[in-house]
Amino acid sequence: MGAATIDVAGIGNAIVDVIAHADEAFLSAEGFAKGAMTLIDAAGADALYGRMGPGIESSGGSAGNTMAGIASLGGTGAYIGKVRDDGLGHVFRHDITAIGVKFHTPPASAGPGTARCLILVTADGQRTMCTYLGACVDLGPEDIDPEVIGAAQITYLEGYLFDPPRAQEAFRKAAGIAHAAGRQVALSLSDPFCVGRHRDEFRELVAGEVDILFANEAEICSLYETDDFDQAAAAVRRHVKIAALTRSAAGSVILADGATHDIAAAPVARVVDTTGAGDLYAAGVLFGLTRGLALPTCGAIGSLCAAEIISHVGARPEAALDKLVASAGLV
Amino acid sequence: MGAATIDVAGIGNAIVDVIAHADEAFLSAEGFAKGAMTLIDAAGADALYGRMGPGIESSGGSAGNTMAGIASLGGTGAYIGKVRDDGLGHVFRHDITAIGVKFHTPPASAGPGTARCLILVTADGQRTMCTYLGACVDLGPEDIDPEVIGAAQITYLEGYLFDPPRAQEAFRKAAGIAHAAGRQVALSLSDPFCVGRHRDEFRELVAGEVDILFANEAEICSLYETDDFDQAAAAVRRHVKIAALTRSAAGSVILADGATHDIAAAPVARVVDTTGAGDLYAAGVLFGLTRGLALPTCGAIGSLCAAEIISHVGARPEAALDKLVASAGLV
Repeated sequence: MGAATIDVAGIGNAIVDVIAHADEAFLSAEGFAKGAMTLIDAAGADALYGRMGPGIESSGGSAGNTMAGIASLGGTGAYIGKVRDDGLGHVFRHDITAIGVKFHTPPASAGPGTARCLILVTADGQRTMCTYLGACVDLGPEDIDPEVIGAAQITYLEGYLFDPPRAQEAFRKAAGIAHAAGRQVALSLSDPFCVGRHRDEFRELVAGEVDILFANEAEICSLYETDDFDQAAAAVRRHVKIAALTRSAAGSVILADGATHDIAAAPVARVVDTTGAGDLYAAGVLFGLTRGLALPTCGAIGSLCAAEIISHVGARPEAALDKLVASAGLV
Repeated sequence: MGAATIDVAGIGNAIVDVIAHADEAFLSAEGFAKGAMTLIDAAGADALYGRMGPGIESSGGSAGNTMAGIASLGGTGAYIGKVRDDGLGHVFRHDITAIGVKFHTPPASAGPGTARCLILVTADGQRTMCTYLGACVDLGPEDIDPEVIGAAQITYLEGYLFDPPRAQEAFRKAAGIAHAAGRQVALSLSDPFCVGRHRDEFRELVAGEVDILFANEAEICSLYETDDFDQAAAAVRRHVKIAALTRSAAGSVILADGATHDIAAAPVARVVDTTGAGDLYAAGVLFGLTRGLALPTCGAIGSLCAAEIISHVGARPEAALDKLVASAGLV
C-alpha cells in the first residue's frame, strides 16, 4: 500500500439540521423518545416542522459533523453522502466543502429532496432528533470511490447508514476496499434504537470488519443486549482493536490491547445543545490516531472537541479546533 | 380610536441570514466596510457564498428580529414583509409565526427568490453584512394592511426599507394610517450607509412622521452630517418625542421631553456575534413603551435583550426574553 493522502474518509447520511428549542411537554405530546433519533417521512417532517418552534438551519449528519471536526483540527478529510440537487443540498455541499473536506458524491437529480433532521433541544441541552432521510435513500455502492477509500488512513462509517436501503452495501464495499488497501475501518453505533433495528448486522460487522468502534453506553449495551456497561465493554474488547465508549458528563473510556484508559470530560460553562457531541468526540479521537498520538491524548482531544460543540447551538464547530487543541497543549 | 389589540406592527425586509465566521483579511480582500451592510445582486451573493466559510441559516431581517424579540418578551406583534413562495420563504414564515408573530403578507409567486443576507462575523464578534434583496423588491403599499396598522399601538419601520424601490410608498402609507388612528410611528435608521443613500427622505420623515427614533452613533451622525454625537443628539431632540441612541459597549442614551437618560449596557460574558444587537435593543425599548414603563426601565430591557442576542450566533433570541426580564426584576 502507498502512503495515505487522506487522514479520514467519512461515509454517512448527508443531512441539514433544523434546530429548535422545545420543552419536555412538547416531546411527550409528540411521543418522541428523548435523546434518541426517530425516522419520519416527508409528510411527518412537514407536520412536525409546522408545530415546532423557530429554528436555525445548520449542516449536520453524524459523519458529516465528524469530518467537519477533522478539517477544523487540521486533518485532511473526504466525505461520501447523498444530497439532492436542491437548496438544502447546495447548503450541505457548501458547508462541508468550505471547511475543507473533499465532497465529490454526485447529487441525486430526481427523487426525494435533501434529508432534514428536525432537532428539538430541551432546557437541559439534550437533543431529540426526527430524521427525514430524503435523498439519503439513494446512496449505493456506486457512490463509493475506491481511490478515496484506498487513500484514507481511516474510513469512518456512521451506523445510521444502516437505515436507508442500499447504504449497507456501500458500507460493506467501503470496508472491503479499506482493508484490501491495508487501512483501518472505524464505526460509530450512532443510536441505541438504530442498533436495535440492525443488531445482527452490527454484531457481524463489529466482529469481522471494524478496527475502531465508537459508542455511548446505551448503544454498546443495546449491541450486546445487556444492562451492564462493564459486561458490554468486556464483550466489545474481544472484537475490535480500539473501542472508545462515551459516558456523557462522566467522560469516556478507551479500551485497547487489554488496557483501559479513563478519559475525563472537558469542562463546559453551560451545556447549550448536545447535538454533535459524539460526532465531535469521534473527530478528536480519529484525528489523534492519524497523528499517532497516545490513546489518552486522543481521548483528551475528543473531549475538548465535544466540549466546544455542546457549548453552542448546532453540530458543526464554531471555534477553530486546531487552535483550541494547541492552546490546551495537546499537540 | 379603539384600544390597540397589537403592541407593535413591524415592517421590514424579510430576509434569511447565512452567518459565517470570517477573518479581517477576508473582509479586506472582498472590499467590505466592516460593520456595515452592503447591497449585492443575485450573482454577487452566489459568488460570495462560494468563497465564504461554512454557515448557519437563521431567519433575520432587522424588523423581523425586533418582532421576534417583542413576541419573546410576551408582547403581541404583527409583521409585514415580502418573501417568495420558496424554501427560504417557508423558513422565514415558519420561524416568525412559530414565535408568535402574526405574518399575513402574501408571498411573491414569481420574480426573485427570498432575500438572503450573508453575514461575516469576525473574531471580535462584529458582523459585516451583504444583502441580496430578492423578493423584498416586491413589497409595495398594497401589502400594508390598514387593519393591522390601525390596531397596533406602535408601527415600527426599518430604515433598510428605503432600499427596495416601492417600499418607501408602503412606509409612508403605514405611517399615515398609524397617525390617523392616533397611534405612534417608530423608525430605526438601520445603517449609516443606508442613511447616506436616502438622507433627505430620512430627514423629512424624522421631522414629520416619526415619534420614536432608534439609531446608533454612526447613523445619527450620518443623518445630520456631523462628527459630533452631542450635536446630532441635540438636532434629533427637536424632531422626535423619543430618541434612543445606542453606543455599543457604552450603552445608550434615551432623549425625551428635554431629559437625557443614560442607559448602561448589560454585561455579556463573551461577545460572540453582534448581529441583531440594535434590533433586540429596539424590541426591549418598544415593549417597555407599550407597557407604559419609565424610560430608564425601557432602556434597561433593551440592554438586556441586546446582551442575550450578542452572546450567541444569530439575530433571533435563543432564551425566553420574558423570563430573562422577569429574573432581572425589570417587570
